[in-house]
Amino acid sequence: MATLRDIGEFGFIDRIRELVGEPGPGVVRGIGDDCAVMDLSQPDKLLVTVDGALEGRHFRLDWVSPYDAARRSTAGAISDIAAMGGRPFATFCTAAIPAHTCTEHATDLMRGVADTARKYGAPLVGGDIVGAFDRIMIDLVVLGWAEQPWLRSGAVPGDILAVTGCLGESAAAVNLLCSNPALLNEPEFARLRKRFTDPTPRVAEARALAGDPAVHAAIDISDGLVQDAGHIARESGARIEILAGSIPVDPSCEAAGACLPHRPPWSPATSGEEYELLLAVAPGEIERLNELLAKSGLGALTAVGRVLEGQGVALLGLDGEELALETKGWDHFRAEQ
Amino acid sequence: MATLRDIGEFGFIDRIRELVGEPGPGVVRGIGDDCAVMDLSQPDKLLVTVDGALEGRHFRLDWVSPYDAARRSTAGAISDIAAMGGRPFATFCTAAIPAHTCTEHATDLMRGVADTARKYGAPLVGGDIVGAFDRIMIDLVVLGWAEQPWLRSGAVPGDILAVTGCLGESAAAVNLLCSNPALLNEPEFARLRKRFTDPTPRVAEARALAGDPAVHAAIDISDGLVQDAGHIARESGARIEILAGSIPVDPSCEAAGACLPHRPPWSPATSGEEYELLLAVAPGEIERLNELLAKSGLGALTAVGRVLEGQGVALLGLDGEELALETKGWDHFRAEQ
Repeated sequence: MATLRDIGEFGFIDRIRELVGEPGPGVVRGIGDDCAVMDLSQPDKLLVTVDGALEGRHFRLDWVSPYDAARRSTAGAISDIAAMGGRPFATFCTAAIPAHTCTEHATDLMRGVADTARKYGAPLVGGDIVGAFDRIMIDLVVLGWAEQPWLRSGAVPGDILAVTGCLGESAAAVNLLCSNPALLNEPEFARLRKRFTDPTPRVAEARALAGDPAVHAAIDISDGLVQDAGHIARESGARIEILAGSIPVDPSCEAAGACLPHRPPWSPATSGEEYELLLAVAPGEIERLNELLAKSGLGALTAVGRVLEGQGVALLGLDGEELALETKGWDHFRAEQ
Repeated sequence: MATLRDIGEFGFIDRIRELVGEPGPGVVRGIGDDCAVMDLSQPDKLLVTVDGALEGRHFRLDWVSPYDAARRSTAGAISDIAAMGGRPFATFCTAAIPAHTCTEHATDLMRGVADTARKYGAPLVGGDIVGAFDRIMIDLVVLGWAEQPWLRSGAVPGDILAVTGCLGESAAAVNLLCSNPALLNEPEFARLRKRFTDPTPRVAEARALAGDPAVHAAIDISDGLVQDAGHIARESGARIEILAGSIPVDPSCEAAGACLPHRPPWSPATSGEEYELLLAVAPGEIERLNELLAKSGLGALTAVGRVLEGQGVALLGLDGEELALETKGWDHFRAEQ
């Protein structure tokens, strides 16, 4: 008897795609991207994303407060709107919470949702409350607008792959928390702490670049750079090569590695919940886009790879050799329990 | 230390309303109705509803198949669109499923969502997959259109309260399942079985009546007639009196009662997950609305009460005396575990 563990999260999504059928009029893009896209017969398209966060899977309340758990989860959902070049405008939340939960903790959880949603221009406007048995789960729905949404399918051979910000910080924070939680409160690791408890979805960067014809495809890095690049490769019918040495990593990640008793088992190539944007950009355009970002006071893109004819995704070492990966990124049905 | 059980589901929602603040431009109605309402600067309004269903709380897989559990849950979400007089057009689903789940069961679950969504004109177009630890949870998001959404707040003194269909069947089915599950497979109870596994959200009735000025307010009965009438009373700033003797009950409910070893502990006044519409209608208009429904081949409305000056909701007996209720309906944080 096959279980979901056998077919994996993406095998299961493929099955769902098959049984769903045609999405119906007005839906420009259904399953297979960061958001669904609706054409409402007006200039802008409606983006819709849903993003569930389960206690023990997406957050641990011995690591973060209910407020921070909610901020993190809400930022993750809003990041999907940024990944389509969109402007978030409304948030919904289903909260499944056990009845024995302290009211103040439950309220802090919802305050984390409401504050984060408001911060990025998408106030909480609805939801559902469920009496859970043990674990908390919050499911975030965010609506956004986009003039011309970035899809995963738009990359073409010759494009340069570029990321916002630095990668690996989310995994570094988790590794510190696993080995010595107190370390994350040290001033040295303030950046990692902030990135873990209050990540910044790249809405401002998306808005600064939205509509620019040089951006061909986009995704946000929620499962890991290699795996998410794989989604662009698959949807675009192209091959992607990532140069491991070019991935931007903040020095705080290396400092975290030095504090750990053994070689850190994470890689910025597979660290999930980064919420940086991964863009496929027309060749020779990165510098111009970085000037656009700088004008808005935003950090630069870093080139990390390129799009080629073919299929699949490869991580290349300094001599161009393909590096083996234990995992490409997060799979919900293949995670360690 | 107060817990959610102390303040109850609706006490918690009140807290959330407070911390959410203003919903922002374009949002006509935020928390406090069946759906949020968006004004997209075009003739029709966008409706958005989210509705979570947790294994062991909303469905039991020893009572229904994964397919039926999903049909039931999806119908409940679509019913929220009907409750605003809307036309559903797109569905999203977050599914939290344990990795050890049989793939065919998991696929049947999603097929139940996809089939039901398509049946009511709102094909599944997106979602999220979460690796759960033990229980399945599905969170449904449905989008709909409405020319002029019915709100809970539109009832005025003098209105007649009316329902579609009959009430009590969902609770009767649960009672049969609790005492003797095999009974529900008897031909005599086919109607109860259908109502329990494949309830019909009243989309057709809503569409037949949408835009009629005689419909002042509406809600769907998901928590129980008295409790849901209470939402109309509260949002409309009015009092509602329901005549217990006028509540339409199908004979199969009485037959179910006769099969049970003790007096059935349910009442059609408090039975939840009915997914019938409860409408506040201008006086003297029910007959005309029923003619409209009949023209579309749909069943009639039944008057069950009236709207008065004042506040609160009362269930009245044959002599006009107020009947005591052990519960007004479902509260997620006050349910027996």
